[in-house]
Amino acid sequence: MKTPFQVRGRALTTLLSDRKLDCLLTTSVANWYYLTGFTGEAGVLLVSREGATLVTDGRFMVQGKEETTGVRVLQQKQSLFEFVGQFLKDAGYRRVGFDPAQLTVAQMQSLRKASGKRLRWIPAPGVIESLRMRKDSSELSLMRKAAVLAGEIMEIGIGLLKPGVRESEVAAEVEYQMKRLGASGPSFETIVAFGERSALPHARPTARPLGKNELVVLDLGVILGHYCSDMTRTVFVGKAPKRVRDWYGAVLEAQGAAIGAAREGVCCGDVDAAARGVLQRHKLDRFFVHSTGHGLGLEIHEDPRIARGQKKLLEPGNVITIEPGVYVEGVGGIRIEDDVAIHAGDTEVLTRIPRDLIEL
Amino acid sequence: MKTPFQVRGRALTTLLSDRKLDCLLTTSVANWYYLTGFTGEAGVLLVSREGATLVTDGRFMVQGKEETTGVRVLQQKQSLFEFVGQFLKDAGYRRVGFDPAQLTVAQMQSLRKASGKRLRWIPAPGVIESLRMRKDSSELSLMRKAAVLAGEIMEIGIGLLKPGVRESEVAAEVEYQMKRLGASGPSFETIVAFGERSALPHARPTARPLGKNELVVLDLGVILGHYCSDMTRTVFVGKAPKRVRDWYGAVLEAQGAAIGAAREGVCCGDVDAAARGVLQRHKLDRFFVHSTGHGLGLEIHEDPRIARGQKKLLEPGNVITIEPGVYVEGVGGIRIEDDVAIHAGDTEVLTRIPRDLIEL
Repeated sequence: MKTPFQVRGRALTTLLSDRKLDCLLTTSVANWYYLTGFTGEAGVLLVSREGATLVTDGRFMVQGKEETTGVRVLQQKQSLFEFVGQFLKDAGYRRVGFDPAQLTVAQMQSLRKASGKRLRWIPAPGVIESLRMRKDSSELSLMRKAAVLAGEIMEIGIGLLKPGVRESEVAAEVEYQMKRLGASGPSFETIVAFGERSALPHARPTARPLGKNELVVLDLGVILGHYCSDMTRTVFVGKAPKRVRDWYGAVLEAQGAAIGAAREGVCCGDVDAAARGVLQRHKLDRFFVHSTGHGLGLEIHEDPRIARGQKKLLEPGNVITIEPGVYVEGVGGIRIEDDVAIHAGDTEVLTRIPRDLIEL
Repeated sequence: MKTPFQVRGRALTTLLSDRKLDCLLTTSVANWYYLTGFTGEAGVLLVSREGATLVTDGRFMVQGKEETTGVRVLQQKQSLFEFVGQFLKDAGYRRVGFDPAQLTVAQMQSLRKASGKRLRWIPAPGVIESLRMRKDSSELSLMRKAAVLAGEIMEIGIGLLKPGVRESEVAAEVEYQMKRLGASGPSFETIVAFGERSALPHARPTARPLGKNELVVLDLGVILGHYCSDMTRTVFVGKAPKRVRDWYGAVLEAQGAAIGAAREGVCCGDVDAAARGVLQRHKLDRFFVHSTGHGLGLEIHEDPRIARGQKKLLEPGNVITIEPGVYVEGVGGIRIEDDVAIHAGDTEVLTRIPRDLIEL
């Protein structure tokens, strides 16, 4: 019986052969966890046909050995990238893959200098990420739990919305409850935005108190068993005026259209267009200032991107957010967000709480 | 009367002239805040003699305009780095500085392609960071408050250490109290490590319950008014055996030696050597697996680094941690950490709670 890490390592080895790579280098902590179980914060992981080698420093040596199986763990004491370059040179590798979106210009310079002229650095973007995009059943099981917990936390958060409470108080309480209920933490800084601040799609919580007759956007997610969830609900404190109800109805309709469009084989740009088209019919598309969604998993933002012009086709195992919104500067914003898993011939909404406008 | 942001912009302009740069590009969120007050999460900041230009996307446009004064805020709708490259080309700049440690290989490729052949990209590492290293009085005032709050939180955390409590419970409660007491959050993931887990310098909290006669390492910090604090205390639950008291005494002595050595004009490597030398005399230096400290400010790890061989001299305005430790695999670890500000002819310890071994 193979561990998930061994299965993934095997799948990656096939991709290395396809690209004629002797070795692939990654500095992404999510990739390290995906392939080995290592959760340290500094190092380089090298994967070759012979196996995985983790290079880290003294702070993470014990952890590296404890958390992984069948991985060689090496300690570097001075410059990480010089050490890795020299190691690759000594190993005699000729074609080493790297991700141009992961390495900095300075890291690349150190690596090239130390690895010598006989080694060729081959750009190989998103190789491990392409595996991570198709979640296996153990990952889907964890992501379902993370999504359900986000819903429970959302209900707690909505319960805290009384006139006078501050954005920062709601955020602090919500993140505390996440940990109390088993999450390792929030999957991103919780957004609690009152009134006109709800027009900022990525507002940070402030000391602003909640007034009456105001919009509230709550956008939160948890990390549970290393996997992320992400959801948003919009609440009106008081009886919503017609304008707000109309906006809300349009966003809800846009979200429904995008969820309906999100099927195996459909192009990601078309899912975005489904949401955007509905808002256009309501003459609200110019207030929808971001893309419709993003993949999620070990990281809060992963492939595929659900955005204008994205040509990638959805595949079974993809987990994405669907989160259209409308933001009117100086007035307020509305966003509704759920997490969706794509299966063969079926789409599963992982987040489980109602989407209707809540008036408190 | 100039704002701190204007003063810093003026100081940066002088550095640009010294280096004959028409413009400097930065993707660091801490640099953005330092120079403009912007707290968004995506974009590029360009600083030239004519002023600052922030390029961001639709999610951060309102925030960018609200948070900054005298900064041009531009919205890009497709590829950020293509847009910035084209903008720099159109502006007619010839020498544009960038930090090789900030830009990825892929970002650099997009920029070079879009900016054309007449523009020269000049490596200019750490220019803004060199300003940030010397904290001004408004920054020191915020950092004192952040350090004092970390001490209060540490006392709360120590108060939670009863046999049976879990690492994750202590961490959750501690981070909740940070926010309740005004912090925007922890400056890093709080470390609560019981028993043999205290030998991992960067342990993540687990469900492990606290036993009797165990070491506990608590390492925590807050972000208050955008500035970080960072401190560590080690506690023994029960009466510490002689071995633990000896180790503790050696680490405390090492910390005292390093704090004593941390003066204006002293080389950072010598501060590290002061701590390491004490541990060597106690035959414990091989258990000290990391460097003695690091700068902190808007980020939890900044220049200067207090590590072996660092040639940089300490200057007034530097704020650093002093955090020697001893880690014995399978047994446990001890670390004592405080934040220290370097002044002209004086050194101030910002963190204010006692350092003696606490036996509970």
